[in-house]
Amino acid sequence: MAQKANIPFSIDRTSRIPMFEQICSAIRQAIIDGDLVEGTKLAPSRSFAADLGVSRSTIVTVYDQLCAEGYITSVPRSGMLVCAISETQFKPRQEIQNRFEDEVQTLPQPLLGGQPDMELFPHRQWAKAVAKVCRTNPQAMLLGGGRFGNFELRKAIASHVLDWRGIEASPHQIIITAGSTDALGICIRTLAKAGDSIGLENPGYPPVRNFAKAMQLVPVDLKIGDQGAEVPLPGQTPRLSILTPSNQSPLGGVMSPRRRQEFVAWAKRHKAWIIEDDYDSEFRYAGHPIPALAGFDHLDRTIYVGSFAKIFSNLLRIGYLIVPAELIGKFRVSLERFGFSASYMPQQALAEFIQTGAFYHHLRKVRRIYKERRKYLIGRLSADLAEFGWFTDHQAGMQIAFHLRTSFQDTVVSEKAEKLGVTAQPLSSFGTSDVSYNGLILGFCNYTEPEIDRAVATLRQVMLGQY
Amino acid sequence: MAQKANIPFSIDRTSRIPMFEQICSAIRQAIIDGDLVEGTKLAPSRSFAADLGVSRSTIVTVYDQLCAEGYITSVPRSGMLVCAISETQFKPRQEIQNRFEDEVQTLPQPLLGGQPDMELFPHRQWAKAVAKVCRTNPQAMLLGGGRFGNFELRKAIASHVLDWRGIEASPHQIIITAGSTDALGICIRTLAKAGDSIGLENPGYPPVRNFAKAMQLVPVDLKIGDQGAEVPLPGQTPRLSILTPSNQSPLGGVMSPRRRQEFVAWAKRHKAWIIEDDYDSEFRYAGHPIPALAGFDHLDRTIYVGSFAKIFSNLLRIGYLIVPAELIGKFRVSLERFGFSASYMPQQALAEFIQTGAFYHHLRKVRRIYKERRKYLIGRLSADLAEFGWFTDHQAGMQIAFHLRTSFQDTVVSEKAEKLGVTAQPLSSFGTSDVSYNGLILGFCNYTEPEIDRAVATLRQVMLGQY
Repeated sequence: MAQKANIPFSIDRTSRIPMFEQICSAIRQAIIDGDLVEGTKLAPSRSFAADLGVSRSTIVTVYDQLCAEGYITSVPRSGMLVCAISETQFKPRQEIQNRFEDEVQTLPQPLLGGQPDMELFPHRQWAKAVAKVCRTNPQAMLLGGGRFGNFELRKAIASHVLDWRGIEASPHQIIITAGSTDALGICIRTLAKAGDSIGLENPGYPPVRNFAKAMQLVPVDLKIGDQGAEVPLPGQTPRLSILTPSNQSPLGGVMSPRRRQEFVAWAKRHKAWIIEDDYDSEFRYAGHPIPALAGFDHLDRTIYVGSFAKIFSNLLRIGYLIVPAELIGKFRVSLERFGFSASYMPQQALAEFIQTGAFYHHLRKVRRIYKERRKYLIGRLSADLAEFGWFTDHQAGMQIAFHLRTSFQDTVVSEKAEKLGVTAQPLSSFGTSDVSYNGLILGFCNYTEPEIDRAVATLRQVMLGQY
Repeated sequence: MAQKANIPFSIDRTSRIPMFEQICSAIRQAIIDGDLVEGTKLAPSRSFAADLGVSRSTIVTVYDQLCAEGYITSVPRSGMLVCAISETQFKPRQEIQNRFEDEVQTLPQPLLGGQPDMELFPHRQWAKAVAKVCRTNPQAMLLGGGRFGNFELRKAIASHVLDWRGIEASPHQIIITAGSTDALGICIRTLAKAGDSIGLENPGYPPVRNFAKAMQLVPVDLKIGDQGAEVPLPGQTPRLSILTPSNQSPLGGVMSPRRRQEFVAWAKRHKAWIIEDDYDSEFRYAGHPIPALAGFDHLDRTIYVGSFAKIFSNLLRIGYLIVPAELIGKFRVSLERFGFSASYMPQQALAEFIQTGAFYHHLRKVRRIYKERRKYLIGRLSADLAEFGWFTDHQAGMQIAFHLRTSFQDTVVSEKAEKLGVTAQPLSSFGTSDVSYNGLILGFCNYTEPEIDRAVATLRQVMLGQY
């Protein structure tokens, strides 16, 4: 027998909460609290409305809503009945916790590597390019035919890599990604499956190793020698190898032409793929950029990964892949299976920014300034830290790998320095534990001479044991 | 004994290619071709410059560049010597392949589901919000303190989900992601490891299943009953379960309060996590939005995934995660390990767009129009397709699951319709092969009445065997 509902209830007409919401809440709570049990019949809308002094349509809406939510159900000839709710007790509604720890600010502190100096960035020029899109073609921020990204941007990139990296590619081979880590993730998902082996530089870029591990790939460690990463040994046949031929990350140094040839020959022989991560190739301070391996190989066995993270802030999160023609279909299927991450919104403006030359103007400017800062850091290292270690001047990149003598342990030095406001990432954290690198990664692009002075002085004091 | 170089070489002074580049290329090619073998001594810069009729500094730059690239090396008292290059032959440089297949255009054709109508989108209002950022705070497009995203946007989202979804969360608990697929990927990477089991609705959203498989998680299939997804059986203890309680994807329908309670109780008991994918909750055409499970659970065992993909184009690629307070640190570490994908660029403008109310204005407008289109599609289905199947009217979402009678096979119907310009995704493709769903997913938001007429007529003809 259906019980008649009896909800002790009154409406607070002074409340900001709408009456509709007050009534819904009261009934929901009564059901959850067990005051209204399964099968209880609610009052007909007309009489309930009269009791509460609200319009009948309000109650009809309340009942519709609670039906949609599944708290009550409409039964022909019986009216509205309460549905079964299990008796689990819920914890009482809490106050909003506003007192969380303050957000960790991530302003890079000297000498964190790989950081561009965003104070040098032409924010107004960039805003002009964006504003032009807003004015002339706002649709381009949210719409576009190509699943691989905005076609104007892909054309601008095709032209950029031809001039700067020696890569001849059609825009159809170019896929816009949410930065280079996304690009590398896409490559791994597209070209490998769990259990496959993957060649990874050791030391190398940690997020890539983390991705590979998370996907259950088996790392084949590629040691770094004088000529760059070593070719996998006979018997090891990784499906793909991720390389940084233009400037080894994090040690620095260019892969020799001979080694490039060997890698390409190896990839052809084993039908393996080379992923060229060309993360900071724009920053070469002597001579011209080293042509990309992908150009050398004519995009035959090489997939190229480029990024705008080191010129723009890495918060723009736009990078790109250039894939061999025969892989276009495979990448398309993979992207449809796993979804895309790159926002369309910046793409048209970025194409504009490149085409008008503002991009190159900025690049030339920062290269000049970074070159000076690099020279300054090298001077300080030679003067103040020579007794603790050594470095090789590769005339490229955004950081220097300073190798420590064995009497110092990089993790200990790094930890002490961090507490004193100096970031010097330990080189050992970039490799597996069985490869013994011991040093500090010291960035220079984002720091002024006084900041470099202070940081180097701090490192010196740490190593002299004064902290 | 070092051999003296003899490069048959002349400079083309009419070429657009700089002399520097011509000389570099000629020497590189001679080394690759074996005309200059290992140990060959290059002419001193002064005499080589004189031979070619260029300045000495050009040759010095050429030699520096080729040294950096590893083709030659500077040996004290011997000058510049050619390095060893292996004898692999490279294929001749090819012409740029411009003749790729035309890019597949991805304009959605009727009745592809889940597609917002971007012709209704207030592009100019959005451009105004973006232009305001360009004018007043261009730095905000590329810089920001919070690693989890722009703080203004996170505050706007906190306020949105409180009003619309019944979730009380601090902005510190909100993480901006590159859309909801990225958000789900982050959850999986953060909360599960290979070999863990994961509860997945069956049928469900295919990219999530693909991600889980790629990460070697073991799917625990959650069947969909009258009350929504079923709680995992005793003995099955997935570490996390991904649910769509507000509107099951792809079947439609709300998870009952009782089932919600059971799930929350189950998660508490097993210290498991519920991921609530609230992908299209804004689109409810009768009554108010159903409060989120995460609000019900007070973000205790539930992580909430929201998205702007259905209101903006999904090419904006901005979504968000709301995580329990105790998981903030864990998500931060995970994002640092694997990298971030969400572009900062749209975030400040999006906060502006929400705060000024333009967002809600648009939402109300499209909800009204989608409601009409839904009603129209339902009318057509009842009139023209009733003899071939049935559907349930859930009064929500962006698509209708039309179940076919067993005499029709959804994949066959879908394939035929696709060729006739009508997209009707087969329901069977959303589930595993052992769950027998047979139907068509029919979207309505993005299509006009004549388009719906034509599509339904085509489907009718396909099922009558007239194609």
